[in-house]
Amino acid sequence: MNIVLLSGGSGKRLWPLSNDIRSKQFIKIFKKEETNNTTADEVYESMVQRVYQQIKRADREAVVTVATSENQVSDLVNQLGDSVGISVEPCRRDTFPAIVLASAYLTDVLKVSPEEAVVVCPVDPYVEDDYFVALKDLAKQVDKGEANLVLMGIEPTYPSEKYGYIIPDTANHTARVKTFREKPTADVASAYIKEGALWNGGVFACKLKYVLERAHELIDFADYQDLYAKYDTLTSISFDYAVVEHEENIQVQRFAGSWKDLGTWNTLTEAMKDNVIGKGVMNSSCENVHILNEMDVPVLAMGLHDVVISASPEGILVSDKEESAHIKPFVDKFDQEIMFAEKSWGRYKVMDVETGSLTIKVTLKPGHSMSYHSHKLRDEVWVVICGEGRTIVDGYEQTVKAGDVITINAGCRHTVVAVSELKIVEVQLGKAINVADKETYQLDC
Amino acid sequence: MNIVLLSGGSGKRLWPLSNDIRSKQFIKIFKKEETNNTTADEVYESMVQRVYQQIKRADREAVVTVATSENQVSDLVNQLGDSVGISVEPCRRDTFPAIVLASAYLTDVLKVSPEEAVVVCPVDPYVEDDYFVALKDLAKQVDKGEANLVLMGIEPTYPSEKYGYIIPDTANHTARVKTFREKPTADVASAYIKEGALWNGGVFACKLKYVLERAHELIDFADYQDLYAKYDTLTSISFDYAVVEHEENIQVQRFAGSWKDLGTWNTLTEAMKDNVIGKGVMNSSCENVHILNEMDVPVLAMGLHDVVISASPEGILVSDKEESAHIKPFVDKFDQEIMFAEKSWGRYKVMDVETGSLTIKVTLKPGHSMSYHSHKLRDEVWVVICGEGRTIVDGYEQTVKAGDVITINAGCRHTVVAVSELKIVEVQLGKAINVADKETYQLDC
Repeated sequence: MNIVLLSGGSGKRLWPLSNDIRSKQFIKIFKKEETNNTTADEVYESMVQRVYQQIKRADREAVVTVATSENQVSDLVNQLGDSVGISVEPCRRDTFPAIVLASAYLTDVLKVSPEEAVVVCPVDPYVEDDYFVALKDLAKQVDKGEANLVLMGIEPTYPSEKYGYIIPDTANHTARVKTFREKPTADVASAYIKEGALWNGGVFACKLKYVLERAHELIDFADYQDLYAKYDTLTSISFDYAVVEHEENIQVQRFAGSWKDLGTWNTLTEAMKDNVIGKGVMNSSCENVHILNEMDVPVLAMGLHDVVISASPEGILVSDKEESAHIKPFVDKFDQEIMFAEKSWGRYKVMDVETGSLTIKVTLKPGHSMSYHSHKLRDEVWVVICGEGRTIVDGYEQTVKAGDVITINAGCRHTVVAVSELKIVEVQLGKAINVADKETYQLDC
Repeated sequence: MNIVLLSGGSGKRLWPLSNDIRSKQFIKIFKKEETNNTTADEVYESMVQRVYQQIKRADREAVVTVATSENQVSDLVNQLGDSVGISVEPCRRDTFPAIVLASAYLTDVLKVSPEEAVVVCPVDPYVEDDYFVALKDLAKQVDKGEANLVLMGIEPTYPSEKYGYIIPDTANHTARVKTFREKPTADVASAYIKEGALWNGGVFACKLKYVLERAHELIDFADYQDLYAKYDTLTSISFDYAVVEHEENIQVQRFAGSWKDLGTWNTLTEAMKDNVIGKGVMNSSCENVHILNEMDVPVLAMGLHDVVISASPEGILVSDKEESAHIKPFVDKFDQEIMFAEKSWGRYKVMDVETGSLTIKVTLKPGHSMSYHSHKLRDEVWVVICGEGRTIVDGYEQTVKAGDVITINAGCRHTVVAVSELKIVEVQLGKAINVADKETYQLDC
């Protein structure tokens, strides 16, 4: 099975654990199926890790490609390793360009035959393994050639106002699609469901060549490289508007398994097996309380009901679970710097912000390094607090260990390579400290 | 009026804002009466600051002495300045030795006549100005010489189980004390109140010589210096057990004004004028919610009722207000380092804890300095991030400013003097980092 996972933008509905650079699909909150391990990193996995494992259980040979933007590449490699394909969108242009780019990546870079089926689905459904078996069935249905597109229709469990609806022509497992309906009111949704309507979960399968043919009708491009180069000139348009609405020959396959959209704290905590992740204690009178704490200090909860508490270096949320769906406008008002990030090379955390200085803690994985770079407007002082490594400053290489101090003046080219896990307190000093103030260079040595 | 304020121990009932070294009386949560200022430090004052201002309004000439332990001296000087007298208990020995030491301090150090009255009261009542007028009246009653001790009896507002009761012989404003009752059950308390009983708020007045005479009967000492020197040999005993229980000639004066004991988050938040102190936002469906946030990142509260949220570098409390009285056993289990402190010279905050290193941020007020000291088991690296000062390292003096790095090896004597407000990131490095690893020296230069 060829599967393209659409990995969406950042979103703030799971603030403070998601932020402008960490999307919800990378938060590690799902307890792994089997584990004898003890650290949080070993016990918990993220949505994207969970989905990837599920796909591999359903189909060991699956070719998995994630369609996403540049700023998620670090997180993806960090969490999934090198075995996953990544179709990097140079900028955001909605689902049609993203799916076309990923399809071109499959045929032109991975050399998959255009005759093969591809399944496209969001990266963040919370589902069981049967869902991925159903995805394989979609691909098999495509192979039969009865329709140009085969959608997954999820059997509704309530008249939701959050989803679009698919109206099939029969109640059979596989049926022709009669029509689509936009997100309705609850009353209208009830009526649809009586007619036999299914939820549209944004999942479909088709032959690769089908996507590429539609693409060439709408976009003038030669191949993957060409499309990538002109990606920023493309019009933002969804796959539904560009393709599905104009297609007469569509089938739908019913899916009756468990399917959840974990977009808010309320739905997310329902999927958590442990009530506390991180340092947290609650007394016996707490009911239906979840604590997700990424800070080093403890959270104590007493006498709360139906509340989620989430703490990270970005902030602290304490919300009634129902109301947690409405945090976005409040979070949008927080004018905040990014306070932490996980990268393919390790992680960093902002420790202190002052006028004229910023102090961060950088942790590099063994064998990893920073880019060789310089800053125009700031000096830096590094104090190594753990591990061993090699620094290169203006071409001069030296080994460093805990206790060593490296001063880097503005303009100086510098990098560090971790030999063992390396932790550095970095004090940035200057009048205009800015992440954009960075020039990178090739290392000659 | 001579007034001795008993400043008690740390206590964890207001965790995470109180900790082993910051007592509740130093937390700044009370809005100042009049202010056009904007920073939290300018808008809010602590219990001890509030009480001190109230005493000065009631009696500009009041001689105020705080009886407390060494570890509160920094906070006291920091918050009250040099105008308050401090009777430092070398170790904790309950209220009788503490009151005797403070009385000896008044007569021997401040040269107050033993014939003068002294009023003794806890440092942390939440009261209005009329309370301090009533304290003056206690002293005046002592001057009349009708009784050896004059107590304040607070008119009960409900049958509390938290307080001892005083039974007067009449309902007059000033009456003789018939007897005392220990903390009763609510039923028994109701019966006492029907008999005309008053709460014992731990406030009394007497002549200084009365305390000293009782003291010489029980303790063999010459004067203040002698008592101070042998303080650790004294028996722990309360003033009630040592003196009040054996005294026949006691009067009580009724006090009908507002009087609150702000010992728990529930009672404390009742006294707060603002619902949010620090960075915090709540949505319109929050009711009776208080946020006290000492962190640099925001707290967002949604849909909560009767909840207190309190966050500091020590941890995060989210509690139903009623249940907040019961946090102590949970907090006792947190095995935690002190993460922040305010001192007379400035403040410090722990930024990061690693095996083999501890990173702190030190802020020194202009003109202040650290002691000249050394550590046996750790090296230190200082990075100056703000301000100007002078460091002395093994006798070698240099001026420092933002961006300067000072490395201090184990054994090296060092200090820094702030010229302007000075902020330093201090990285401590060593296998056994410990606050006790500190030797201090006289500076020759």
